[in-house]
Amino acid sequence: ANSVLSSYGTTIFTVMSQLAQQHDAVNLGQGFPEGLEPPKVLRAAAEAAEAGPHQYPPMMGIPALRQAVAAHDRRFYGLDLDPDAEVMVTSGATEALADCLFGLIEPGDEVVLIEPLYDSYVPIIRRAGGIPRTVRIAPPDWTLPRDDLAAAFSDKTKLIVLNSPMNPSGKVFDSDELAFIADLVERYDTYAVCDEVYEHLVFDGRTHIPLMTLPGMRERCARIGSAGKTFSVTSWKVGYIVAAPALMAPIAKTHQFLTFTTPTCLQTAVAAGLGQDPAVLEQLGPDMAARRDRLADGLRGLGFPVMDCAGTYFLTTDIRGVGFEGTDEEFCRHITAEAGVTAVPFSAFYRDPAAAPRHYARFCFAKLDSALDEAVARLARHF
Amino acid sequence: ANSVLSSYGTTIFTVMSQLAQQHDAVNLGQGFPEGLEPPKVLRAAAEAAEAGPHQYPPMMGIPALRQAVAAHDRRFYGLDLDPDAEVMVTSGATEALADCLFGLIEPGDEVVLIEPLYDSYVPIIRRAGGIPRTVRIAPPDWTLPRDDLAAAFSDKTKLIVLNSPMNPSGKVFDSDELAFIADLVERYDTYAVCDEVYEHLVFDGRTHIPLMTLPGMRERCARIGSAGKTFSVTSWKVGYIVAAPALMAPIAKTHQFLTFTTPTCLQTAVAAGLGQDPAVLEQLGPDMAARRDRLADGLRGLGFPVMDCAGTYFLTTDIRGVGFEGTDEEFCRHITAEAGVTAVPFSAFYRDPAAAPRHYARFCFAKLDSALDEAVARLARHF
Ligand SMILES: CSCCC(=O)C(=O)O
Ligand SMILES: CSCCC(=O)C(=O)O
Repeated sequence: ANSVLSSYGTTIFTVMSQLAQQHDAVNLGQGFPEGLEPPKVLRAAAEAAEAGPHQYPPMMGIPALRQAVAAHDRRFYGLDLDPDAEVMVTSGATEALADCLFGLIEPGDEVVLIEPLYDSYVPIIRRAGGIPRTVRIAPPDWTLPRDDLAAAFSDKTKLIVLNSPMNPSGKVFDSDELAFIADLVERYDTYAVCDEVYEHLVFDGRTHIPLMTLPGMRERCARIGSAGKTFSVTSWKVGYIVAAPALMAPIAKTHQFLTFTTPTCLQTAVAAGLGQDPAVLEQLGPDMAARRDRLADGLRGLGFPVMDCAGTYFLTTDIRGVGFEGTDEEFCRHITAEAGVTAVPFSAFYRDPAAAPRHYARFCFAKLDSALDEAVARLARHF
Repeated sequence: ANSVLSSYGTTIFTVMSQLAQQHDAVNLGQGFPEGLEPPKVLRAAAEAAEAGPHQYPPMMGIPALRQAVAAHDRRFYGLDLDPDAEVMVTSGATEALADCLFGLIEPGDEVVLIEPLYDSYVPIIRRAGGIPRTVRIAPPDWTLPRDDLAAAFSDKTKLIVLNSPMNPSGKVFDSDELAFIADLVERYDTYAVCDEVYEHLVFDGRTHIPLMTLPGMRERCARIGSAGKTFSVTSWKVGYIVAAPALMAPIAKTHQFLTFTTPTCLQTAVAAGLGQDPAVLEQLGPDMAARRDRLADGLRGLGFPVMDCAGTYFLTTDIRGVGFEGTDEEFCRHITAEAGVTAVPFSAFYRDPAAAPRHYARFCFAKLDSALDEAVARLARHF
């Protein structure tokens, strides 16, 4: 068996979701939303699933979806993309990331990462032959450590993976931070793989700014979006990558051999979703912010300090606030089994969990109000 | 950009399908079927696409589909599989292959292949750090060169990729050949990744025998199936892998990080399809054999020698039969542009097309009778 991949355990999301099920816990672990699936988009999928066509779509994605993604990126970010050469549909954002990393990394290349980070980045980078170089942002305010970041870049750097809005921290990079990153990317003649799956989950009047829109970045960024997150259908596994043609070429070659294509019926439905009134997407942030506030208020009321959260589905809390003295993993197992509420240990989002902060837990607030209230009530009964 | 992946062109299927569209040609190039989508399976997909659930299914696949795959493999092959530990759903057979190869190969490992072969094998093996060792079967009767195959195995061999029924040759390995291969796999303590996507497309009373069913092979084989091929819905991208737990572990780790999951609504529909009367699957071979005969008779009538074809969607013809003097690629471009019929050059299925036979073309016969007849009529007008 391959030594890199064999060295990783089952993803924490699976582990905690299984545990949640065993204990009939309210699952605020894995990041998926409840009660937000848009009926029109579901209807479009059902119609396409029955009517067809059912045979291989084009490798880059169906034209209707590539055009809809280009129109979306023009409308929201002022990007001017050629749907034929600069947009590719993938089988979810996880595949999109793998396409970018396997397609761009040459063995020995260094890749800059910001911890805490999503759990597929490091395994894929290492399997692609890359060498991860991580810097850390820290709670409660997630300030970018600029000197550390600059020091992580070198002549060996091939790219940075930038996740904004960022899972699990909830950080949304501002224009000043992005300008700093853009400068490094350009100075070292590198690229950025921009995981922007939470692009429409931004709160409190802030705006999401794709790194790709900064001066000099148009040709250096591969921007990844996710229909699963944008339309609250995480099982659909429809993602997309936008990138200039020269950058797209090796990424598309990887997609060609990793999955080749993505189901037509779901592509058709996502195209219909993106073709809706953009107000629907603009409403997602405010709706989700209300859920964040509901959970944050509840947790604060129990004594949990709650970190800044400007976007995503996730709130980070300090488990010492309720006097818990074990590790984050012990806490998450404990509240699942004893209180009937599941969260995810924050250290799972570090390359080396043993060397990570061990007193935070991530709660997903993208749930129905009833689930959030029940979770808080259960925790209140327990603590 | 990664040097391995960048060295490959756009897949021949995409190139020829685009050319077919430009010239309004009858497309007998890319391997997808016409007019065979089972209405009940489509209906099941439509219902699940509307009714949900729409959030992440289990990483290994929904239980209903894993159980249906296990039941299928018991019914057809007498395999006794644990649906919880030995079956995994993937986003198509292409992803299944990538999961197996990235999960099992350690850089420097050798991988045995039989040419002609499917075009994703070599790029993925090389990107995974493996070293391809190829042997060739040759038209018209595709005899396995046993001495060459034995010589390709060594202490460095990690696995063989065995495609049976085999694309593009149409060969179906018989029990004697499989026993020879099983002996090598066991003798060198290696594994077999068995691409069996055409398992139900076998003709003339022959039967498909999974290598996994041979003595000693149960723990050494990862068997790959494809709902796209079995239910004639190639755009759905639902595949599956069955393997013993120890072999499945690193393969599942790869799947976890490459795509993570596969759309629930399509998994549900495929489970429904596998739960149907098995007679439906048993009828696929005879139906497709009639199409093969229709096209083979037509091509022979025009002077094309037709090679043995025991399974799959594909017929190989010798283009010299009609006096064509250029290469196979010139032939395929020529008939697309001049006759309005598209085929795929046979040399595209070799690691080094320049060193491959250059006088064969592959025609896909999985089409409507009207398309097959029109193709033959067009070729007849031209030659
Ligand atoms: C791919 S499962 C995890 C979903 C997710 O994005 C998260 O929980 O962080
Ligand atoms: C993945 S596109 C090609 C389909 C196919 O299996 C073939 O034509 O050989």
